[in-house]
Amino acid sequence: VAFVARRGKHIVRVPYADTDKAKVVHHAAYFRFLEMGRVELLREGGLDYRRFEETTDLGLPVVEARLRYRVAARFDDLLEVETQVDQATRASLWFNGVIRRDGIVLLESRVRLACVSFTADPAEALRKIPDAVLDACLEPGWDV
Amino acid sequence: VAFVARRGKHIVRVPYADTDKAKVVHHAAYFRFLEMGRVELLREGGLDYRRFEETTDLGLPVVEARLRYRVAARFDDLLEVETQVDQATRASLWFNGVIRRDGIVLLESRVRLACVSFTADPAEALRKIPDAVLDACLEPGWDV
Amino acid sequence: VAFVARRGKHIVRVPYADTDKAKVVHHAAYFRFLEMGRVELLREGGLDYRRFEETTDLGLPVVEARLRYRVAARFDDLLEVETQVDQATRASLWFNGVIRRDGIVLLESRVRLACVSFTADPAEALRKIPDAVLDACLEPGWDV
Amino acid sequence: VAFVARRGKHIVRVPYADTDKAKVVHHAAYFRFLEMGRVELLREGGLDYRRFEETTDLGLPVVEARLRYRVAARFDDLLEVETQVDQATRASLWFNGVIRRDGIVLLESRVRLACVSFTADPAEALRKIPDAVLDACLEPGWDV
Repeated sequence: VAFVARRGKHIVRVPYADTDKAKVVHHAAYFRFLEMGRVELLREGGLDYRRFEETTDLGLPVVEARLRYRVAARFDDLLEVETQVDQATRASLWFNGVIRRDGIVLLESRVRLACVSFTADPAEALRKIPDAVLDACLEPGWDV
Repeated sequence: VAFVARRGKHIVRVPYADTDKAKVVHHAAYFRFLEMGRVELLREGGLDYRRFEETTDLGLPVVEARLRYRVAARFDDLLEVETQVDQATRASLWFNGVIRRDGIVLLESRVRLACVSFTADPAEALRKIPDAVLDACLEPGWDV
Repeated sequence: VAFVARRGKHIVRVPYADTDKAKVVHHAAYFRFLEMGRVELLREGGLDYRRFEETTDLGLPVVEARLRYRVAARFDDLLEVETQVDQATRASLWFNGVIRRDGIVLLESRVRLACVSFTADPAEALRKIPDAVLDACLEPGWDV
Repeated sequence: VAFVARRGKHIVRVPYADTDKAKVVHHAAYFRFLEMGRVELLREGGLDYRRFEETTDLGLPVVEARLRYRVAARFDDLLEVETQVDQATRASLWFNGVIRRDGIVLLESRVRLACVSFTADPAEALRKIPDAVLDACLEPGWDV
C-alpha cells in the first residue's frame, strides 16, 4: 500500500454573474470554480481550510497557473470540477483541475500553490507545505 | 462660511469582465464603481483610505444600500461617478452616488457606511465615524 | 384556496474569491447569492430561467435594490438564501431576500425586477411580466 | 522598416473589491487587469474593440493562459500593465502581459486569444484572426 493523490469531484452551478457579454462564462470565473474544488478536496481529506488559516498564520496562495479553455461554459450549467494534486514538493503543490459538463472537458488546468506566513515580512514569508495539507490530498492506494 | 459636502467626480472605464450575458453591466458591478468613487472622494479630501485602514484598526463597511438602475451601462463605456456625502451622524455616513454616461443618469444610489474596529469582537465593533473621514468629505462653502 | 408567494430556500457556500481585505464577504457579492436564490426559486416553480431567456427574447434585469447588511458573512460559511416574491405588478416584481447563517439574519433585501425585450430599442424595451414568471413564484395556499 | 509588436502601457488602480481575505489581490482579478491592458493596446492601435464586436459577428475569447504570480498586489496600488503581442498565427494571438508596481514585476503572463464567430455553431465557430486586429498590435520599427 502506498499513498496516491485523491480525486475530488465537486459540482458547481454557474451563476448569471459569471457570464459576460459573449454569453458564456468569463475566463476569470473558472478560477472561482477551481478554487472551490480545491477547498472541497481538502475538506473531504479532513482539512477545513478556513480553520487552517485561522489556527496557523499560514495561507496557500496561487503562485502559478496554466489554463486551457476547450469549450465555453454557460449560465446555469452544472459543472463537475475534478481536482487532484499531481506534484508535491516541500515548496509547492501543483493541482490538476478539470472542469466538465456532461462528461465533456471544458477546461484543463494546473495551478500551483505555495505556502506563506501572513505575519512574516512578504520577502521572507515562504514556508514549507504543511504535512496536514499534503495528507488531505492523498489516500492509501496502489500506485500501478 | 460653513462646511458643505464636497462633490467628487471620478471616471471609470467599464471592463469586459463586468458585463453579463444580457450584454450590459451586471447589477453587482455598479457597487465596484461606487466604491471607487468613494475612495477617490476621500483621497481628494486628504484621506488615503488604504493608510487609514493600516494605521487605525478601523474600516468603513457598507451597512445599507439603495440602488436605482435607470439605464444600463455597457462594455467600454466611460462612466462618470459622482459622489457626495449627504447625511452624517456619529454612527454612519450616507453617500449619494450617481453614475452618468454622456450626462445621462444610469444609476442613482445611496450607500450608508458605518465605522467598525477590525480587532474588536464583531458584536461590539461599532465605532464613531472619525473626524478625519468626515473632514475629507467636506469643504468650506456657502449653504444656500 | 388562493395563491400565495412560495418561499425558496437555497444553500450557498461562500467562496474565498467573494471575501475582501476586511476578511468578510464583500458587499457586492451578496447580489450573487440573491440572484442564485431567485434562479432556484423559479426553477422549483417550474421555470428554467436559462431556457426562458433562450426561448423568448426577454430578460428580467434588476432595476432597483435595497440591502441591509446586519452581520458579515465569512469565507466558507454555509448561507441559507430565502427568496420570496412580495409584490407583483404588471410592470415589476419585488423579491424579498433574506440571507441567514445558522438562523441568524446576515442580510435583508428587496430587489425589483422588470421585464425587458433584448431585441427592442432600449428606450422601448419594457414588457409586461409574463404569467409564466409570476406563476413560478406562487403556490396554492391560504392567505391568512 | 519592418513591423514589430507595439508595447502598450496602461495604469490600473486596484479596487477594494478585488482584494480577498489574505489582504492582497485575489488571483483571478489579475485577469481583469490584463484584459483592460489588451483593450487599451488595441484602442491605441486604432481598433475599438467594442465596435469590433458590434460590427462583425466576431469576438476574441481567451483560449489559454499562463500566469506567474511574483509579488502580491494590494488595494489601491497603481499598477502598470504592459501588453504586447508576442506570437501571431492565423489561428491565434499570444499576448505577453506584465504587471508592475513601482517598476517591480508582480505578475508575468501569456494569454492566447482565438477568434470566433458568435453566430456560428460553437463547434465550427473558429475564424482566422482578422488583419485589423493584428495591425492594431503592430507598429513600424526595426527588428534588431
